[in-house]
Amino acid sequence: MNPERFLTTFHSLTNIGWTEDGVLRLALNEYDIKVREELIKILSSIGVHIMVDDAGNIIGELGGKLSDAIAIGSHMDSVPYGGKYDGFYGVMAGLEVLRSIKERGISNHSIKLIDFTNEEGSRFQPSLLGSGLTTGIFDKNYVYSRRDKDNISFEEALRVSGFMGDESNRLMHMKPNYYLELHIEQGPILEEEGYQIGIPLGIAGLSVYEFTFKGQSSQTGPTPMDRRRDALVGASKFVVSVRDHAKKQENLRATVGILNVKPNVYNAIPREVRLTVDVRSIERNRIDHTINEFVNIAKSIADDEKLEVEYRHLWTANPVSFSDEVISVIERACKELSMRYKFMYSWAGHDAQYMTKISKVGMIFIPSHLGISHAKEEYSSDEDMLNGLRVLEKAVELLNS
Amino acid sequence: MNPERFLTTFHSLTNIGWTEDGVLRLALNEYDIKVREELIKILSSIGVHIMVDDAGNIIGELGGKLSDAIAIGSHMDSVPYGGKYDGFYGVMAGLEVLRSIKERGISNHSIKLIDFTNEEGSRFQPSLLGSGLTTGIFDKNYVYSRRDKDNISFEEALRVSGFMGDESNRLMHMKPNYYLELHIEQGPILEEEGYQIGIPLGIAGLSVYEFTFKGQSSQTGPTPMDRRRDALVGASKFVVSVRDHAKKQENLRATVGILNVKPNVYNAIPREVRLTVDVRSIERNRIDHTINEFVNIAKSIADDEKLEVEYRHLWTANPVSFSDEVISVIERACKELSMRYKFMYSWAGHDAQYMTKISKVGMIFIPSHLGISHAKEEYSSDEDMLNGLRVLEKAVELLNS
Repeated sequence: MNPERFLTTFHSLTNIGWTEDGVLRLALNEYDIKVREELIKILSSIGVHIMVDDAGNIIGELGGKLSDAIAIGSHMDSVPYGGKYDGFYGVMAGLEVLRSIKERGISNHSIKLIDFTNEEGSRFQPSLLGSGLTTGIFDKNYVYSRRDKDNISFEEALRVSGFMGDESNRLMHMKPNYYLELHIEQGPILEEEGYQIGIPLGIAGLSVYEFTFKGQSSQTGPTPMDRRRDALVGASKFVVSVRDHAKKQENLRATVGILNVKPNVYNAIPREVRLTVDVRSIERNRIDHTINEFVNIAKSIADDEKLEVEYRHLWTANPVSFSDEVISVIERACKELSMRYKFMYSWAGHDAQYMTKISKVGMIFIPSHLGISHAKEEYSSDEDMLNGLRVLEKAVELLNS
Repeated sequence: MNPERFLTTFHSLTNIGWTEDGVLRLALNEYDIKVREELIKILSSIGVHIMVDDAGNIIGELGGKLSDAIAIGSHMDSVPYGGKYDGFYGVMAGLEVLRSIKERGISNHSIKLIDFTNEEGSRFQPSLLGSGLTTGIFDKNYVYSRRDKDNISFEEALRVSGFMGDESNRLMHMKPNYYLELHIEQGPILEEEGYQIGIPLGIAGLSVYEFTFKGQSSQTGPTPMDRRRDALVGASKFVVSVRDHAKKQENLRATVGILNVKPNVYNAIPREVRLTVDVRSIERNRIDHTINEFVNIAKSIADDEKLEVEYRHLWTANPVSFSDEVISVIERACKELSMRYKFMYSWAGHDAQYMTKISKVGMIFIPSHLGISHAKEEYSSDEDMLNGLRVLEKAVELLNS
């Protein structure tokens, strides 16, 4: 591979949509369209066959001696005021792999590069719409009827963009044998612990629950401290317990993100607090077990504070495990390149999780400076990016042999 | 005094403005006007001279041999969906005292009955507008320009009501020698501890501060538990500390009533939490000292959680002490009537606090069932109301001798 070509291409193209507050390359907006056209221009110039499916996913195919395919993918859309790296890095690295394979002659397997539409879920919710439709997880009507904040449907945005492709181009019909995705970590672990490469074993699942603590409102003045039924005191104990409980354990994340108080008046004791708990783990039964513990903690706090507590399930996404075969190949690539690597999990969602339905999947992570992501401060060094690219290229070479 | 006459008058008149959700007798609304007219009708029928000042306060005067006056007062306005007792009880008890003094012949001192306008501050903010203007604490322009939620000014409401009186009738010009106010406790102490009468030594002061905890927002997934700067965890520790700190002490109340989270999204670690702390004590330096302790607690929590914390003063109302002479007279009245009484503080505001500027002031409390107030469930028994009335009458008799 050609490090200079990769870096030049990456840095010039990721500036499409850059503002002083971050990248504004929301799915299928003017900047996303522009960068897609640039990608297609380069792929076409080296003889890659371009297909677009009915989710607007771009699939570039470099033919090989065998029909089995190795796919590399990621996404070029960003969150509002996002970073320059994120999914964009993965697509640019895949492009460089195709360019260098092409230069070396004819590939053994067919090699595919995929740019998935609307990975972020910032313009159209939920996230992973492109990979969800192309793998058959989402229904076409569901995907097409998603609307952005200006009430434009996904279908309309796709038509206007010029990237309305054909259902026959869906990846579920091609079923690539392998799927690889290179991404920034979006967390601080690799940098802090001095690793060059992270090898995710899978993607964590999550369950989100709502808890409501109910007490008795009264005037703050005349109600003595020991006669109160203050819903906010109970909820606050719970917030701290949730964090402390999760902090004591490995590979568990639990967060209270939303918290609303009633009546929310300075001189009234809070009568009701409603909050959400987001619990993540790589093991589904660990999530369920943790939720049970949180329910018990909430009940015990409610008893102590003379409150009532209710809870309800909002939604769950199951954890995903990557292919042992692909993980081994990535590890072998790291070893052959003398990279310091660490097995870990992905705690954020990626298109890779839906690709597990139709392919053997693996991911490669590189360090994120300070763990910051989805912000203009997002940064990974050129050296780290080149390390990730080398591992990706080596893994493809091993799978392609 | 005539217990039956008092109870009949109280129960029939407090139904003016009663709905199935509570009393709707907001200051100068149709129900408040109706009940004011009924009060004036009764007072006039027994020869009481009626004056109205420029705040709409009604001052009924029963002449005596001496020009020094003993004033009894309270208010008949309610919060939205309030209780039947609250200030209304105090006015009705004062009315019965005047009726029975009139029946017994000529009083030694002049006896005044006052119904203060807009005590609650529910229709026009702040509270105590009537007593504030008549004692010279508030400026006339300030009081007249207060507006309700329909943008009606206090001045306009006063004119429409027919209770626009004369500035020369302000109590600051008459300066009654003594002022007595009988009220429900609005807290659970007297009932729980088996007392019939509470004798407040004064009214607690309060300071309200705003605290803001600032951390770092990031995705709940990829950010490990021990790398977080979660503003909600810090704020929650603070909420619990404020309660625990105040609970350990006598005669101190501290409450977090308002708490708002940013960005308040289920999968984002909270970056900012803004909350209010309402601190009350009978001693001003105790309030200031407690605020200092809370600032230190907040800073210590912020350090532990790697957060920043800011705070600012919103407002302060100084504590008020009642007259030792009047307190002694009320105590003597209780003893002569063999009442079980308890010295305590008023933790809510009353017109009595502004009356301390121009008179020697004392208050009398009776038990509130379950401590509930400002709600339709507010309740005090006829027996308790009569006990309070007897103490008020006896105290007036002692002052009048």
